[in-house]
Amino acid sequence: MADEHTPQAINSPTPANQLPMNYGVLLYPAFQALDVFGPLDALNILSLKQTMNLSIIGPTLDPISTKPRNPSLNPKNSNFGESILPTHSITNPPPNLDVLVVPGGYGVRDDDITPIIDFIRTTYPSLKYLITVCTGSWLAAKAGVLDGKKATSNKASWAGTKVWGPNVHWVPHARWVVDGNIWTSSGVAAGIDVTLAFIREVYGEEVGKDVGRVMEYDPHTDASWDPFAEVYNLTE
Amino acid sequence: MADEHTPQAINSPTPANQLPMNYGVLLYPAFQALDVFGPLDALNILSLKQTMNLSIIGPTLDPISTKPRNPSLNPKNSNFGESILPTHSITNPPPNLDVLVVPGGYGVRDDDITPIIDFIRTTYPSLKYLITVCTGSWLAAKAGVLDGKKATSNKASWAGTKVWGPNVHWVPHARWVVDGNIWTSSGVAAGIDVTLAFIREVYGEEVGKDVGRVMEYDPHTDASWDPFAEVYNLTE
Repeated sequence: MADEHTPQAINSPTPANQLPMNYGVLLYPAFQALDVFGPLDALNILSLKQTMNLSIIGPTLDPISTKPRNPSLNPKNSNFGESILPTHSITNPPPNLDVLVVPGGYGVRDDDITPIIDFIRTTYPSLKYLITVCTGSWLAAKAGVLDGKKATSNKASWAGTKVWGPNVHWVPHARWVVDGNIWTSSGVAAGIDVTLAFIREVYGEEVGKDVGRVMEYDPHTDASWDPFAEVYNLTE
Repeated sequence: MADEHTPQAINSPTPANQLPMNYGVLLYPAFQALDVFGPLDALNILSLKQTMNLSIIGPTLDPISTKPRNPSLNPKNSNFGESILPTHSITNPPPNLDVLVVPGGYGVRDDDITPIIDFIRTTYPSLKYLITVCTGSWLAAKAGVLDGKKATSNKASWAGTKVWGPNVHWVPHARWVVDGNIWTSSGVAAGIDVTLAFIREVYGEEVGKDVGRVMEYDPHTDASWDPFAEVYNLTE
């Protein structure tokens, strides 16, 4: 099924020996599933044409569930969620990470999130790129790595941006924002768009288009496209 | 963060006591990640307003990886994939499934897929709804449950449809197709659109719109929208 899920050969704008190779995703309980698997499936597809490794980094090596832990968030007593198996823990992380993906989700507000924020703070200086999705940017902001930088986040919970990152230049009307080597996106599905934009930038326009085509996804390629900012009456 | 990921209250077109409650997703090695997590994250969000249970059903209870097992599919020797933990196995499945979601992926062509196909065949008669994404429709076709029905599938590997389902009325130009209680979608990201269409139909238009808004996803709401059929020159 090579015709199904494999992008075309790479004609990259980045010299081959400088391409990122070691990717990581930072998970915690009650992460938002699509924040993670939108970006990762674009990268799964890319990894079949490009040598890439993925580390799934959790608080411990225990499986990590998407289920909200705060009972008030689950008023109908649903038993609905998915559990992912980490490959590494934050106390024994992979060496030489090039790219770290940080999702959002209800769990960002849980009391035990501090070690996750600390991991971002200590890991960021050696990264080539940091990509956040949704309220993942709150964690990056709290870690201090967004201070003085432009960034965006989930639009429905925009009020939290000021609380989590008082020194960040938050951009309310944006599908994604790039500042230096940090790519932040709006909520949930915007993670697909920021990742495809990242692939176009780093690996080349055609490679990014191919990955989108393999995903049968019609990407938003304009970083300022954002009807959700209007839904929530957010203005600059 | 109730404002972030929670849809509004439900005004459903389906009587409350007939709404589907027990969802299952059928996984196998080398499934396509977004085929699963596009639909499931829409349903994760819905489950916070509606009593719903999810069973993750695998060949066994072992973690299931997205990694292609055929080395020819991974020519760059990447080590890139995600492992999901099943809650049930096909030999000890959950009782009373209402909805079964079947993803596609490279694994559909692996030799050990037969028990997965058999599970679809034996489970379908008691389901309220079957939803397939991408080449998940090949598995449903091989199980015989699509015989004489209209269905669609991944567009890049369209040639496989005739092989896997010679008695199916395959629709090449469609984002998704509904025939009776079977909803089949096109490749990968189309799983998000078919799931939101399913939610609109079963739980009501506003509920479906809300879930899309929480996901910050701009859905394709026209089932005949399909630029990917044109990419691959597919005609009726």
